[in-house]
Amino acid sequence: MNPTLPRRAWLALAAAAPALASGCAAAPGSAAAGDAPAIRGTGDLGLVIERARGTVAIVDTSRREVLAEVAGLGDLSHASAVFSRDARYAYVFGRDGGLTQVDLLRQCITQRTVQAGNSIGGAISADGTLVAVQNYAPGGVKVFDARTLQLLADLPAEHAPGQRSRVVGLVDLPGRRFAYSLFDGNAIWLADCSEPTCPRVTRLEHIGRSPYDALVTPDGRHYIAGLFGEDGLALVDLWAPQPTARRILAGYGRGEQPLPVYKMPHLRGWAVAGRHAYLPAIGRHEVLVVDTATWQEVGRIPVAGQPVFVMARPDGRQVWVNFAVPDYDRVQVIDTPSQSVVATLRPGKAVMHMEFTPRGESLWLSCRDDHRVCVFDTQSLQQQATLALDAPSGIFFTARAHRMGL
Amino acid sequence: MNPTLPRRAWLALAAAAPALASGCAAAPGSAAAGDAPAIRGTGDLGLVIERARGTVAIVDTSRREVLAEVAGLGDLSHASAVFSRDARYAYVFGRDGGLTQVDLLRQCITQRTVQAGNSIGGAISADGTLVAVQNYAPGGVKVFDARTLQLLADLPAEHAPGQRSRVVGLVDLPGRRFAYSLFDGNAIWLADCSEPTCPRVTRLEHIGRSPYDALVTPDGRHYIAGLFGEDGLALVDLWAPQPTARRILAGYGRGEQPLPVYKMPHLRGWAVAGRHAYLPAIGRHEVLVVDTATWQEVGRIPVAGQPVFVMARPDGRQVWVNFAVPDYDRVQVIDTPSQSVVATLRPGKAVMHMEFTPRGESLWLSCRDDHRVCVFDTQSLQQQATLALDAPSGIFFTARAHRMGL
Repeated sequence: MNPTLPRRAWLALAAAAPALASGCAAAPGSAAAGDAPAIRGTGDLGLVIERARGTVAIVDTSRREVLAEVAGLGDLSHASAVFSRDARYAYVFGRDGGLTQVDLLRQCITQRTVQAGNSIGGAISADGTLVAVQNYAPGGVKVFDARTLQLLADLPAEHAPGQRSRVVGLVDLPGRRFAYSLFDGNAIWLADCSEPTCPRVTRLEHIGRSPYDALVTPDGRHYIAGLFGEDGLALVDLWAPQPTARRILAGYGRGEQPLPVYKMPHLRGWAVAGRHAYLPAIGRHEVLVVDTATWQEVGRIPVAGQPVFVMARPDGRQVWVNFAVPDYDRVQVIDTPSQSVVATLRPGKAVMHMEFTPRGESLWLSCRDDHRVCVFDTQSLQQQATLALDAPSGIFFTARAHRMGL
Repeated sequence: MNPTLPRRAWLALAAAAPALASGCAAAPGSAAAGDAPAIRGTGDLGLVIERARGTVAIVDTSRREVLAEVAGLGDLSHASAVFSRDARYAYVFGRDGGLTQVDLLRQCITQRTVQAGNSIGGAISADGTLVAVQNYAPGGVKVFDARTLQLLADLPAEHAPGQRSRVVGLVDLPGRRFAYSLFDGNAIWLADCSEPTCPRVTRLEHIGRSPYDALVTPDGRHYIAGLFGEDGLALVDLWAPQPTARRILAGYGRGEQPLPVYKMPHLRGWAVAGRHAYLPAIGRHEVLVVDTATWQEVGRIPVAGQPVFVMARPDGRQVWVNFAVPDYDRVQVIDTPSQSVVATLRPGKAVMHMEFTPRGESLWLSCRDDHRVCVFDTQSLQQQATLALDAPSGIFFTARAHRMGL
């Protein structure tokens, strides 16, 4: 699998290769491919989405290699994943409403349900018992038993009688709670699923026009929604006795003189490092620096293009940035103490996503149009490995099982 | 195993039970006890030290139960553990200089070496390849291959010709580096083990008299050593181009009018939550609150006794505190936004150690003299489970594999 091959040639090669694994064999404990499943730890495993062919690759971050590919996950053109608290199973949320449970040890699909017509991601509760999915069509959130994928609660996001909103920005909060935003409802809702079949929903209304994405800070305290319909963002302090939304960063958004925006950045592409949040400026070649106590902008760092993901190394010493077209062959590294770009890398075409290893010694990034994933040593900035994969996009490591709001 | 039995009776019962597992059977892949090893994820596993009988219990934090006990680890009267980056193996550091590798899946000892006469803990490098142990006799640090336990480097801590210092406060830093303090050398040394057989040591001298323990902040930036010989602490900003030690918290220590100190708190018992560090006041019934930007004290919280461990829930919303004798049957919960004690629990006799589950939904604590481990729901503060174990002390969960400085 030569990473320099164009995709068509690569697919021709792949077609000649052995069939991919998909569903698990019926006998419990048996592996899909007929081999005995590996006795191994799962702390250094991960998934790479191969978006074009409904496949995920299971990777080992210690050996920096692909262990297996699992097919049959449907439309993965906008896919994300969370992990069970034992770090054995991944839950993959597909664009087509598919929710797929993948066994990383037996390397196969264990359960799959197409639970909506159009979906945009999900979350898992802190205790690992509940998986929630946010849906566009029909709009709402569905909550599943993480073990069985049995539906436990359907939260229709009916913001007005008979009107269901598309749901975005779903995150987990401590205590079997979830927060999410109603794109059509101009609202942020908080669902307490302590009793999953009887969830209690708190509605924060009039938070601003058309929230299009959201994030929660790594400490689970601040929920922030981006607004498509106006400038600024809606911030909720979830630790307040009666949480309310207030507006922050009034200039954030497209501004009075809109610039062409080649790719709307995900809010989850924000980084929080030390006392600052680093966020992609919309339409500008800048990363904004915001103080997380006041939520005021305190600086801007010029970068090589319109930033998409702005990600902090787990120790906060570095922030890595990728870009929208036409600059999406580049990645820049910001040194946070000096708040300056210290390196510009050109790892390949169409850098889609980045993921740090749990303690930050390496960064993995996907070069979609070069059909490879590259691994960099974050200290030396030297490339450590290249993995040939078909149109890779999202990269997700099992250590996410132990972190909030991912 | 009735948790209310006195220890003598418990041991009599235990003696009648089947022999504990210890070394692994010779055949690769076979489990010590003859059962097939479990195909399972390792993200929800942990270890509890049973200090009196050289045994560790392997626990499952999802089911909240003991999976197995492994004997033969020597003197565990002051023991700690770190984990391999795949979360399969624990490395247990015993007081007698024993370094033991335990396979959590096969539930047995895979390797063991008594590498010094008297040892006080260790660390694992961020990339998982190196295990370092700090020693009292002979003084110094030894660095081992994490896979084979082969000795790669011996760093004698020779602070003056022919004089080796006892070593304390060993922590891992990003990039295969370690920091440690020389109790007899009044120094902090930084060892870069990028080339493990040829480590480069940077010496910071005259940092203060008799550093007795140290910690690194969760971001790996600040290394702080407590001083037995004088008040205050030595702080090193490891991100500085030329790190140096400076004195902070001048009043911290025993002060001009020394109070009786029933148990010298570990510095690793500090909590960092948001912008504050919470630390045990020495000899006083107080938790000190320190601003991590200025390292100035900004508050004091009255508590039920002399604090030993002051631990932050992973989201920083709560800080849990245990106490020295005679108040070691109590645990208090501090709410960080209001900086006040919101609950006092009395879980059992001689609360030794506490560990949060990775996302903080539960807290496990060991009641040594009641021979049990209790698990609490951190939201409701209700007890969720009790596990009968012999004289439990340290509790360590595999998610530590993915965190720095633990």
